[in-house]
Amino acid sequence: VSSRGEKIVVVGGNAAGLTAASRARRLDPRLEITVLERAPHAAYSTCGIPYFLAGDVDQESLVRMTPADFQRERQIEVLTSVRVDEVAPSRRRILATRTDTGEAFEARFDRLLLATGVVPNVPEIPGTDLPGVHTLVGLTDALRLAPELEGAAQAGIVGAGYVGLEMAEALIRLGKKVTLFEGRDRVLPGLDADMARIVEYELRRNGVRVHTHQKVTALAGDGDRVRSIHTGRSLGSTPVDVVLLDTGVRPNVELARSAGVRTGEGGGIVVDPWMETNLPGIFAAGNCTEAFSRLHARAVPGYLGTVAAKQGRVAGENLAGRRTQYAGSVGTIILKAFDLAIGKTGLSSDEAQSERIPFTSARIEALDRAAYFPGAGKIWLKVLAATDNHRLLGLQGVGYGDVARRLDVAATALTSGMTLEELANLDLTYTPPFGSLWDPLHRAAQAALRNLSSPG
Amino acid sequence: VSSRGEKIVVVGGNAAGLTAASRARRLDPRLEITVLERAPHAAYSTCGIPYFLAGDVDQESLVRMTPADFQRERQIEVLTSVRVDEVAPSRRRILATRTDTGEAFEARFDRLLLATGVVPNVPEIPGTDLPGVHTLVGLTDALRLAPELEGAAQAGIVGAGYVGLEMAEALIRLGKKVTLFEGRDRVLPGLDADMARIVEYELRRNGVRVHTHQKVTALAGDGDRVRSIHTGRSLGSTPVDVVLLDTGVRPNVELARSAGVRTGEGGGIVVDPWMETNLPGIFAAGNCTEAFSRLHARAVPGYLGTVAAKQGRVAGENLAGRRTQYAGSVGTIILKAFDLAIGKTGLSSDEAQSERIPFTSARIEALDRAAYFPGAGKIWLKVLAATDNHRLLGLQGVGYGDVARRLDVAATALTSGMTLEELANLDLTYTPPFGSLWDPLHRAAQAALRNLSSPG
Repeated sequence: VSSRGEKIVVVGGNAAGLTAASRARRLDPRLEITVLERAPHAAYSTCGIPYFLAGDVDQESLVRMTPADFQRERQIEVLTSVRVDEVAPSRRRILATRTDTGEAFEARFDRLLLATGVVPNVPEIPGTDLPGVHTLVGLTDALRLAPELEGAAQAGIVGAGYVGLEMAEALIRLGKKVTLFEGRDRVLPGLDADMARIVEYELRRNGVRVHTHQKVTALAGDGDRVRSIHTGRSLGSTPVDVVLLDTGVRPNVELARSAGVRTGEGGGIVVDPWMETNLPGIFAAGNCTEAFSRLHARAVPGYLGTVAAKQGRVAGENLAGRRTQYAGSVGTIILKAFDLAIGKTGLSSDEAQSERIPFTSARIEALDRAAYFPGAGKIWLKVLAATDNHRLLGLQGVGYGDVARRLDVAATALTSGMTLEELANLDLTYTPPFGSLWDPLHRAAQAALRNLSSPG
Repeated sequence: VSSRGEKIVVVGGNAAGLTAASRARRLDPRLEITVLERAPHAAYSTCGIPYFLAGDVDQESLVRMTPADFQRERQIEVLTSVRVDEVAPSRRRILATRTDTGEAFEARFDRLLLATGVVPNVPEIPGTDLPGVHTLVGLTDALRLAPELEGAAQAGIVGAGYVGLEMAEALIRLGKKVTLFEGRDRVLPGLDADMARIVEYELRRNGVRVHTHQKVTALAGDGDRVRSIHTGRSLGSTPVDVVLLDTGVRPNVELARSAGVRTGEGGGIVVDPWMETNLPGIFAAGNCTEAFSRLHARAVPGYLGTVAAKQGRVAGENLAGRRTQYAGSVGTIILKAFDLAIGKTGLSSDEAQSERIPFTSARIEALDRAAYFPGAGKIWLKVLAATDNHRLLGLQGVGYGDVARRLDVAATALTSGMTLEELANLDLTYTPPFGSLWDPLHRAAQAALRNLSSPG
């Protein structure tokens, strides 16, 4: 770990970039580390934004550390409102602009980390540039949206991904009338249809108007701002005061590409197991990359803060001269929508089919603890396993109880390649206030094993 | 699976015995299955007893299924109040007595399962036979205790194991004055002292008088009933109206031994991986056995319903003619005491030392979810790992939040032999309402890794 006075530049001041910077600093106190963030804010909890907009958390609490904190506590220079215009790999320089003053400057690096995150996919339909139409990929978007929400009575959400659902809850809690449009046959298309239906029920129960199979064809306004959402189906038009687009994101790789950094089929920066790109000394981490997925046994883009932070940690170790490999993700995700916890680890049925893995699945319904305990909640688990070797492929969980616990156990089991038999025999905790003698996860594994052993 | 008309007799009608009977029935509808239970009750939730005594759950709800349910739903004959006096292996017969009528009878078996559970260890001190002194290993004990609690104002608990702590909470909630005596230096001696201290604080905060390092030397009474607890130390005597003995249990193996079934060093019935004893066709399962522990790589007694049920399931498969091996436990346990969840999986520091495994440990304190979320609670995790290969050895968790989740993940990681590095990189769930970007478990693993990498 000898890299006296070496200069590290990190492009991007969120989960991946700041985790990398912090990890590198901890391993090597002599490094000079600068983080450049295009937005006026860095180091905030992206996942906390729906709760910020709902009023649960204020902006100060959303921000984990200020640039001054980074300087004082970790001797990391964090510069916000800085746009990096060019990376010159051969000269080991970046060219950047302070967006508040317009001032251009150059910075030298020995090693560079690209942690540029994502940009929103805006659908190619009329009206997306109308005032009142918002994407929601960062705090800048949220701060633009917040004041508009005050006057808005009717909100439309285009796309029923996890941010769309979290925002549906936030807006309902703020007293808005909320209409959610999803072009596919279900909300959260990453889940199986039977699990997604439970989510739809919860959304409707809480007053969200859910329209699936409804492709939005246009947003219309009166010049001043957006006023209605139009779909290609019988629904016609829905009046709105504000529109949120949850229509996907893609890796933000323009800067990387123009510097000669290679991107892959999924559109993300290609990295090796050490998070290094094709250009020596230039690393990438987080949602701008295509990183190794243990499930697919290949690199796939993944847009999660948890994955970004873990990649950032690995990149930070390697920026500091270690040789640490990224372990890979298993696609674990959870969200809350109203009283429901909703999540997944591993593959859904659609995903297992596209991977051409023959599989069986079983869905069970259970209470998450003894029925006589206050707070006992119903949960649904759906387990998928490979037909040939009985290996766990994925778990989906939805429910009014402790779903996170079962997903985390399944994620651990997936990581170590456990079979259904092993899952069914795990020595898990039990006491009536917190669980069942046979955990719902045991029962799901047993149900899948019965499917495998029964003929036909 | 061909065993037409074969006769299965199960001795013991709780977790292990009834799980085995039910599993055998499901696999083979032709078996004749009889379960003999000495007590007047079978099929109740032993773990629910403290909650029954506290008034949270009534007797009917504590009992999962009645003998009539077993007959109707599973064609299993469950006979209660039947004492098995003798097993005659060569004649394939058991000799039994109906304790309510005194009637003796014989029953033939092709395969026998011993699931006789445990008997309480009563300390060899004066006064344990006084009225008002109770052990608490089953519903019979609980039903004897319940009416006495009504008149009792002051309760003494001898032994601070998990039943002792659950009962301390139950009795405080019933408005009793509760004094807890433990001969060792801490409550829950299965935990490390630093973790046990957090538990002691919670007990005291809720009004339990906790006396550790206090060996009870005598119980004294006025002939009518117990009136005081005496210790060898300065404390002198403590007035009580009722005493609970939580002074350990041992495998109930008298019947087995007299039949020639071999028991081991831990006092439990020795079984092979198929839960068969040294006598062919005679199986044993549950807390009367010494079963394989993955942690010790040998058989150890374990007194938990979860383990009993899993052994019962394996025994049931083998009773029905399958050849299923028991996977082994990792010593996972959890309990609730007041607002605290307390648990462990794997080895404690004392246990790792007795196994002569060089290890490192790290304890962390964390919130179990984003601080701004209602219900966010502080938890403490202590992780132990082997110094040489960094393999996880155990996790202890105590806290006012979701401890079960972290224990279950650690139990899964232990089962698959994960290292600290793997634990630190697990792709676990995160959303602010349910967790942290870096889970407390990640942070505990990272802390232990720092200990391993720092000199000294």
